[in-house]
Amino acid sequence: MVMSGKHAIFNGKLIDAEQAVLPVQDKEFQYGFGVYESLRVIQGRVVYGEDHIMRLFYSAEGLGLRHPYTSEQVTSYLMLLIEVDAIEDATIRILLMGGMEARLFITVAPLLTYPKSFYNEGIKAIAYNGERYLPQYKTCSLLMNYMALRQASSQGAFEALLVDRNGLILEGTRSNVFAFEEKSVYTAPVSMVLEGVTRDKIIKAAKKLGYRVVFEAPRIEDVLAGRFNELCISSTSMGAMPLSMVDDYTFNSNFSIITAIHTLIRQWELDALH
Amino acid sequence: MVMSGKHAIFNGKLIDAEQAVLPVQDKEFQYGFGVYESLRVIQGRVVYGEDHIMRLFYSAEGLGLRHPYTSEQVTSYLMLLIEVDAIEDATIRILLMGGMEARLFITVAPLLTYPKSFYNEGIKAIAYNGERYLPQYKTCSLLMNYMALRQASSQGAFEALLVDRNGLILEGTRSNVFAFEEKSVYTAPVSMVLEGVTRDKIIKAAKKLGYRVVFEAPRIEDVLAGRFNELCISSTSMGAMPLSMVDDYTFNSNFSIITAIHTLIRQWELDALH
Repeated sequence: MVMSGKHAIFNGKLIDAEQAVLPVQDKEFQYGFGVYESLRVIQGRVVYGEDHIMRLFYSAEGLGLRHPYTSEQVTSYLMLLIEVDAIEDATIRILLMGGMEARLFITVAPLLTYPKSFYNEGIKAIAYNGERYLPQYKTCSLLMNYMALRQASSQGAFEALLVDRNGLILEGTRSNVFAFEEKSVYTAPVSMVLEGVTRDKIIKAAKKLGYRVVFEAPRIEDVLAGRFNELCISSTSMGAMPLSMVDDYTFNSNFSIITAIHTLIRQWELDALH
Repeated sequence: MVMSGKHAIFNGKLIDAEQAVLPVQDKEFQYGFGVYESLRVIQGRVVYGEDHIMRLFYSAEGLGLRHPYTSEQVTSYLMLLIEVDAIEDATIRILLMGGMEARLFITVAPLLTYPKSFYNEGIKAIAYNGERYLPQYKTCSLLMNYMALRQASSQGAFEALLVDRNGLILEGTRSNVFAFEEKSVYTAPVSMVLEGVTRDKIIKAAKKLGYRVVFEAPRIEDVLAGRFNELCISSTSMGAMPLSMVDDYTFNSNFSIITAIHTLIRQWELDALH
């Protein structure tokens, strides 16, 4: 368990970080009836905070998880926490658990970053047969993601690509997936996956760089047959991260497209802070 | 949240019940990487305790969830808790969360019982399209069960029957399912469902009462077309509970088979206590 903040927020109130707990007898905890977001704080400012809060509420609505919070309130809690603990760089997690009375936790962990080599050399991924339940929402139902990720780790891979019953790569365990073929980029439509905050930026960046965005999930058999020049995963913490291998297939690429996209979206992040 | 016990067990140590909590920053909590069991305590004795503990360990092994506990240790924790709080009748929950160090919680709630009318008149169920992830294990991945059960409740039903992509009723959200046709009873094979402790007793009881047990999951279309005389759900807390309706289909039955089976398995429970 990573715990960096001295404080946390519970239902709008500042608490000590170690008081951010849930009773194991809590019914909604037992059922995993909750939604969450992970946000980046850079230079004391939340990156795309409003987008994340809107998606938290979208996930809650999708599950019929009622709560009394407004975007302004959650924003003010984030500000309070950043101020009290003088946070510069961090990953902040918002957890909204359902129930007779919804419970909102905001906790702080160190900023999640990755080695430069991951971006320069690409990372390995495995294919894993599995479909998330309610994939459009960011829910606490993550056991399959955990199992898939553990299998990836045991094979020296960094991510598992989730392949549905039709052979489509819909997403990673904690990422969206993009496959580049000449001047086109393929990714699953939002009806099938979480509408990633970073996914949206990558689509914008790809268009800006002259790529045609096709909302069709790439097929695993096409990846393994070498159809795509480059493949990347994306998330708030990763940005756009290139894949060097999927199972036994190796990409023969310098990842120039993905590097350009990653650079652009990180620049936009910084621009948005000021 | 129902909390009846004064105490709980955490990793073998007696604690106050309100200290049975998990930090929301705990990675395994966030991923739902845990397994559990619900047990009945009657007359101060655990019903089929060893069966439940064995299944807890079976679920843990299925997930690759490592822990240091033995059946004897868990049994002794249960005994300790029952003695300290002078428990007569209760539902006990064992939760085993994975991680670098596994964590074992044992908590106490009031004995879960149901009105006699549920057994005499049967209960209503709805059909819900959904498949559990790793259905052979009793895991914390229960969001679909929660959503299905909530939909059932909103339609005045007590249970949702989970129908897989092939139209088979594999199980309920918290129960196994049995369908009776003349002198045969149909239920999903253990390869497809949780090997219920009560499921096993119902199979034994059905055989004793002269029924042939067929390990084939009943089809929802056959249920709705009136193929089966009686249908029941089963669990530790329910025993064998008859269904009066599934969606719009009404069973025209006095539930004589199911009542006989329920009576027999409850008698066996009492016999096993002494």
